[in-house]
Amino acid sequence: MAGNTFGRLLRLTTFGESHGAGIGGVLDGCPAGLPLSEALIQAELDRRKPGSGPAGTTRRESDTVHLLSGVFEGVTTGTSIGFFIANENQRSRDYGPIARAFRPGHADFGYQCKFGIRDYRGGGRSSGRETAARVAGGAIARALLARHGIGIHAATVELGGIPAPDIQMEGARSRAFFAACDSVIPAWEERVRAVRGAGDTLGGIVRIEAHGLPAGLGEPVFDKLDAALAGALMSVGAVKGVEIGEGFAAARLTGSQNNDPMTPGGMASNHAGGIVGGISNGQPIVARCAVKPIPSIALEQHTVDVDNQPVTIRIGGRHDICAIPRIVPVLEAMTALVLADALLLQRRMEARP
Amino acid sequence: MAGNTFGRLLRLTTFGESHGAGIGGVLDGCPAGLPLSEALIQAELDRRKPGSGPAGTTRRESDTVHLLSGVFEGVTTGTSIGFFIANENQRSRDYGPIARAFRPGHADFGYQCKFGIRDYRGGGRSSGRETAARVAGGAIARALLARHGIGIHAATVELGGIPAPDIQMEGARSRAFFAACDSVIPAWEERVRAVRGAGDTLGGIVRIEAHGLPAGLGEPVFDKLDAALAGALMSVGAVKGVEIGEGFAAARLTGSQNNDPMTPGGMASNHAGGIVGGISNGQPIVARCAVKPIPSIALEQHTVDVDNQPVTIRIGGRHDICAIPRIVPVLEAMTALVLADALLLQRRMEARP
Amino acid sequence: MAGNTFGRLLRLTTFGESHGAGIGGVLDGCPAGLPLSEALIQAELDRRKPGSGPAGTTRRESDTVHLLSGVFEGVTTGTSIGFFIANENQRSRDYGPIARAFRPGHADFGYQCKFGIRDYRGGGRSSGRETAARVAGGAIARALLARHGIGIHAATVELGGIPAPDIQMEGARSRAFFAACDSVIPAWEERVRAVRGAGDTLGGIVRIEAHGLPAGLGEPVFDKLDAALAGALMSVGAVKGVEIGEGFAAARLTGSQNNDPMTPGGMASNHAGGIVGGISNGQPIVARCAVKPIPSIALEQHTVDVDNQPVTIRIGGRHDICAIPRIVPVLEAMTALVLADALLLQRRMEARP
Amino acid sequence: MAGNTFGRLLRLTTFGESHGAGIGGVLDGCPAGLPLSEALIQAELDRRKPGSGPAGTTRRESDTVHLLSGVFEGVTTGTSIGFFIANENQRSRDYGPIARAFRPGHADFGYQCKFGIRDYRGGGRSSGRETAARVAGGAIARALLARHGIGIHAATVELGGIPAPDIQMEGARSRAFFAACDSVIPAWEERVRAVRGAGDTLGGIVRIEAHGLPAGLGEPVFDKLDAALAGALMSVGAVKGVEIGEGFAAARLTGSQNNDPMTPGGMASNHAGGIVGGISNGQPIVARCAVKPIPSIALEQHTVDVDNQPVTIRIGGRHDICAIPRIVPVLEAMTALVLADALLLQRRMEARP
Repeated sequence: MAGNTFGRLLRLTTFGESHGAGIGGVLDGCPAGLPLSEALIQAELDRRKPGSGPAGTTRRESDTVHLLSGVFEGVTTGTSIGFFIANENQRSRDYGPIARAFRPGHADFGYQCKFGIRDYRGGGRSSGRETAARVAGGAIARALLARHGIGIHAATVELGGIPAPDIQMEGARSRAFFAACDSVIPAWEERVRAVRGAGDTLGGIVRIEAHGLPAGLGEPVFDKLDAALAGALMSVGAVKGVEIGEGFAAARLTGSQNNDPMTPGGMASNHAGGIVGGISNGQPIVARCAVKPIPSIALEQHTVDVDNQPVTIRIGGRHDICAIPRIVPVLEAMTALVLADALLLQRRMEARP
Repeated sequence: MAGNTFGRLLRLTTFGESHGAGIGGVLDGCPAGLPLSEALIQAELDRRKPGSGPAGTTRRESDTVHLLSGVFEGVTTGTSIGFFIANENQRSRDYGPIARAFRPGHADFGYQCKFGIRDYRGGGRSSGRETAARVAGGAIARALLARHGIGIHAATVELGGIPAPDIQMEGARSRAFFAACDSVIPAWEERVRAVRGAGDTLGGIVRIEAHGLPAGLGEPVFDKLDAALAGALMSVGAVKGVEIGEGFAAARLTGSQNNDPMTPGGMASNHAGGIVGGISNGQPIVARCAVKPIPSIALEQHTVDVDNQPVTIRIGGRHDICAIPRIVPVLEAMTALVLADALLLQRRMEARP
Repeated sequence: MAGNTFGRLLRLTTFGESHGAGIGGVLDGCPAGLPLSEALIQAELDRRKPGSGPAGTTRRESDTVHLLSGVFEGVTTGTSIGFFIANENQRSRDYGPIARAFRPGHADFGYQCKFGIRDYRGGGRSSGRETAARVAGGAIARALLARHGIGIHAATVELGGIPAPDIQMEGARSRAFFAACDSVIPAWEERVRAVRGAGDTLGGIVRIEAHGLPAGLGEPVFDKLDAALAGALMSVGAVKGVEIGEGFAAARLTGSQNNDPMTPGGMASNHAGGIVGGISNGQPIVARCAVKPIPSIALEQHTVDVDNQPVTIRIGGRHDICAIPRIVPVLEAMTALVLADALLLQRRMEARP
Repeated sequence: MAGNTFGRLLRLTTFGESHGAGIGGVLDGCPAGLPLSEALIQAELDRRKPGSGPAGTTRRESDTVHLLSGVFEGVTTGTSIGFFIANENQRSRDYGPIARAFRPGHADFGYQCKFGIRDYRGGGRSSGRETAARVAGGAIARALLARHGIGIHAATVELGGIPAPDIQMEGARSRAFFAACDSVIPAWEERVRAVRGAGDTLGGIVRIEAHGLPAGLGEPVFDKLDAALAGALMSVGAVKGVEIGEGFAAARLTGSQNNDPMTPGGMASNHAGGIVGGISNGQPIVARCAVKPIPSIALEQHTVDVDNQPVTIRIGGRHDICAIPRIVPVLEAMTALVLADALLLQRRMEARP
């Protein structure tokens, strides 16, 4: 109830702070008999690791995951799966200056108002570091989905205002920035370099697709599949907008343009992004997320301190220039958690004998 | 768990179909002592009523709400509040032709795949008629928020691709289309008339603001206030995109542009839309929703029937040309339910004596 | 969250007071395709009806249930099932004297402390009348279980301190007091008559059995099947104790006496009451509930009024002399809701393809 | 949803097996500002430690708890509190023989039926070892309650069929067996010695009291305080019965005997055990639990193996002779979790300004 649990039948509960002992979680509700190893989870965590690529920080973390329970002889037992990733490289001294001042664009002020206390070391629980636990849990959800022929792929389709001219989802996993195409990468590298030089940061847009989903997933009314997805994706710190299918563009189409005609072989188009009336229709799920620029900038900013006195702040430390590409596997993980949960919920009892 | 309950401490559970006995719900968790009457709820329902304005249907429903429990001597007792709105005007014969064919853009196909059965009369449970119960429940949440000085206002900021040139939230309640300004109304009326003449339908964009919210609402990590809002708004059938604050525009700003500087008197700007790190910061909450065009069009469409045979369909019956303006009070209701729930959750125990 | 919803996948939400418009509920999560009619629910409600038998009140209610949603062409659609039972016969004048005084043994004082307000007419929400909604919801759960060959039977095994000498569950449904055997009935009738004459009331013990349940239901650790059952049965107002299998007698056995030996044909005994380690083992589920005497007695009692002044009270009105037999179908309903929910939860995804 | 999470606002999620890496958990929803240290939790864990007293096993575990998150500068931050207790002393070879045979009275068979797989090393997740995480979480709940003047005390009131002649709750914490009085201890020691010599095991009865609770806690209808308590206590593996107040004895009283008269200074008696209509009434909460004998006995037992072939089994290893006294702090912990959760839920918003 305090925000650290996600899901209904497949539930991920997480804990940990940026500069505490580490980050961990418990995945409950995973069916028994799924092959699971630390290596499988580690592979996803490695994709989120800091310090890779031109937009990255210089902070180095091995982010090594340890499975603590729920696996016996290489397969899941159906009981809760505990895991832990120790923090290794917390230079707390970097964060000294911000112990008293609230960083603009960060959760500092809200946490202080909410809890009357906050762990100011790297943002504590509000740090993006918590997403490591999402990726670990999502890796298990992903393995579950893969058993059912469902795959999830995300790609960066826009960075710093420069859209990718082409959308090729399949190769994104191995491209710099997890870019949607090769040709845009030099322009993005150039943009990142310029903005970094100016002490500033960037945002972008990520597209997520899920293939192989059967029709019929999602629940009516409040727990529509797109509602669950929107909530899950928006729960990732940097995300400020979510679209399904045509999204905001749908607001400018007419019904005859936006409706997807049905044929005996499936929908003739996919304006809906695979979800109609909140229920999957068998087409690929398509979502897009707006990622805001990282709020930790090297430029001087106006803010207030804990006594509400005006101060200026300049944020040191080792920070990413953009949440992309590291946010991409996080968005994939949240999508995997939503879809695996929906799949488990749909395995309902048939009333007819 | 099957999608018909919304909220955590303040929980709305709804039921009812387009052509059944009626629509109803139970609101649980409302604090005791809140003045509540049928008239208070009716006032909100009247704003959602069909048949008003140029984009409306000719279907007439009085949508009269009956309070069934939870109120004693004019105030809430803290127990569950049941309410019911009888259906009055179901011309089931209009829906005969669609008993076998799946309407493009509707939930028909998904429901059939999910449940193996569907109530084809007006879409059954997937009909927009279910939103009457959201508005009724939201009216109570709204009254609760008002006691704490929190107000919610929504306005249409774009219709059929024509944006309102000016955003004046305060007068929207009494304007046609709940428009964000007066000057755009003639253009929207013209657009609606043209599209209706062509047998087609329209979408648009709605902006929602909440004022008076204290800083500190929302829960960390998965239950961020913006995540809850995004899920709630996306659960309304016609919504295909949700933005908070700058939303997708934030993806094109730099950190120095997007961060809101803090001053002793509050934030100097509100790019964040009142929520940072998932926690309210005391600024107005600002969200925008993309509303897709109504899928029920009078034009001939290609689809399949329950035997997966290709057929064409032309949808008769009395339908709105646009979910706007009727969706506007629904989006306000969902926002009210989210914020009232967040407010109740924040009233936590103080550990310090 | 405020106590009016029960269950996880199969969820019953109820509302209504003793002297308001009526009692109702919403059952969500019932699978599609289950034949359901008002008659099926009415049959269970009729078993709970007041005024039947020597321990009954003279209050007469037809308790006619109306199905409001979720059923189409005689079967469930998988959407939420709303139902309502109008109150008919509320003689509010009977309750005038207790508007100011707290009735000993009743929830009056607790509700006043909790909510700062209470509906004193017949106890409002705390009245046993709310159990009508449990029976209605339970009737649907029962129909679901019957499809899977699972039956639930309860019987009174002790009344007013007089135990039934023999336990014959099968015929209980048609016996007075839903007694566990015929021979004890005259003694119970005699006891009831004497206590009623003295202006006092009685309690007793009810035994519940469920047959046909597969092994493997229930969840580990906190959601054990016996934990769910104990919580469900204890939530019925008059219940003050719950035992599974040997219950308190098990505390006096040794391990060699209490363990149930296993044979290729099943357990050789059933001391465990069908649940070991919180998981069903394929033997019949056996539970027992202690039912306290009805607190509304005609004798003078010492109490305080809303100003904490000492007063005496003598409770008029039409009251049962014992919660038995009317509580018996309520306990069956709660058992049905628990078991149907557990059955739905067990229909999980198989990870192995 | 898979059984490893307990609570609503204060939620404990646990993981871990008898012979895996260890036992751990996450407590979410604890208010900020509560002083918390490993020492505070360790003190409760030490009370549950194996190997102390005549009824104990020879297995030695230091059961050292590590706090992993949620605490900053010695107080809770309001975020999720992770903790871990490493397993130290798993002699897996002891459990070899039971890899194929189902132990009578254990969860082995149910887990195999439920999951199609089981961790047979010491029972895996079904081992009583999971209760260490309950005690750790409960220690935090207890600290929270102590801030509000609420204390919880449990004592053994019967062992092996021998009741304690006197109930003195206050000194139980320091007595052998956590006994309710000193005088019964020699008889219990004698009984334990005899039964251990015979290769058999014992059960008993534990009484739990909570003092200082305000009136008004608990939720109406399904989430009554006694229902929550009964579910929580019954979720502890060895518990087979739960009573509140008079419990089963209430079934033999008349209303005039069982009702607690109210006076300006409080209730004149406490037959109700502090809960009426599911809501606390300001009197001490009183509950009793029936604890079954430990199923692991050294005597030969009849059972079947995984191929459903009859075999005999004799359980070696180092086992307790009775779940008492180690279960006593576990029952206290569950009570603390229930009451702290109820207290947080009651801190509701006042609708009246």
